Amino acid sequence: MPKVSPEYLESRRAEILDAAIVCFARDGFHPTTMKDIVRESGLSPGAIYNYFQSKEEIIESIAARRHEKERQLVLEAISKGPIATALDRVRDAFLDDLDSPQERLRRRVSVQLWAEAQRNPQVRKIVRRSFDEPRKLLSEMLIEAQKRGAIAQGANAEALASFVIAAFHGLVLQREWDSHFSIEPHKQLLDLLLGAVAGAPESAMAG
Amino acid sequence: MPKVSPEYLESRRAEILDAAIVCFARDGFHPTTMKDIVRESGLSPGAIYNYFQSKEEIIESIAARRHEKERQLVLEAISKGPIATALDRVRDAFLDDLDSPQERLRRRVSVQLWAEAQRNPQVRKIVRRSFDEPRKLLSEMLIEAQKRGAIAQGANAEALASFVIAAFHGLVLQREWDSHFSIEPHKQLLDLLLGAVAGAPESAMAG
Repeated sequence: MPKVSPEYLESRRAEILDAAIVCFARDGFHPTTMKDIVRESGLSPGAIYNYFQSKEEIIESIAARRHEKERQLVLEAISKGPIATALDRVRDAFLDDLDSPQERLRRRVSVQLWAEAQRNPQVRKIVRRSFDEPRKLLSEMLIEAQKRGAIAQGANAEALASFVIAAFHGLVLQREWDSHFSIEPHKQLLDLLLGAVAGAPESAMAG
Repeated sequence: MPKVSPEYLESRRAEILDAAIVCFARDGFHPTTMKDIVRESGLSPGAIYNYFQSKEEIIESIAARRHEKERQLVLEAISKGPIATALDRVRDAFLDDLDSPQERLRRRVSVQLWAEAQRNPQVRKIVRRSFDEPRKLLSEMLIEAQKRGAIAQGANAEALASFVIAAFHGLVLQREWDSHFSIEPHKQLLDLLLGAVAGAPESAMAG
């Protein structure tokens, strides 16, 4: 067997993940077969199994890749200046993504997985982790904002992170349903909410 | 054929809808057949077709029944006192429902339909209407609140309604995923948001 570089392996891996997203978004997660993904990727039928044994392994890798991207985004936002503008940058990165065709394809797959998670315990685990990890990242950012006085000390950072992610998931759905969907008013509402938490008396947000 | 009362017909109809919710929540919308629903309902195989020709007709009726319930809930909340407490009552009715087992079953089906809507145009139409109708109800409540001065005049009532429903849909998902889920902090965050909109300068919320 010829020696291959890590870059080569990584780029084949990424091609398979991208092909899988196209298949899942087009045909649904459940009906898609490994064979469909091979066909979409243009790789040789056996090659895919050097990388992934199952559709579940593939979505696990899609989720891990996404999490790494989000982690980088948050670290970069934090390193670039004051915490309040870091929150703005994270907000913009997530919400503006709702208009990106590539990202919308991936989010279509998320909706598929929310449904699949009800009956497939492996998928449920991945879906839960894909919620827990961003929530942890966002909570940490909000706790950092509290330390620096940008958000009230008594605020329940974890609940706030959960709520913001809940709104984001709901907007993913509305982006699919509503042809007149516009993200700007929602950015303003998020800002109002964060501003309100910043100014809330500590007792109102303890929990 | 013996004459039957409208009450009898209505109660058979309701039984079929309840049986369908059980099947969809347990097995998924796509894999469930009309035969499965007949079996779950305990009715005779032919009888179900006197009421519904397809699974799509059944979810259409489930959605219509739900919409009627929500409309009553909002009308009742409004008739009972000042608009600010009406908003509280509607908030509580929706959010407390997330802890009701019957309601959680129905919400599991909603998640199924969000996925199915991506590929089934009939389901997409129903899912969209199930979003548009509550949004319209909530917008109307918020516009009423503006008229009475409980929310800033310049606020974009439709965007606020969309945002609140987005958060609600996201919380439906988290209620499924998170065994430690608690609704109370989210009620407080919703209140903070509405309070912030009430106090926001008009320009910040125009749109």
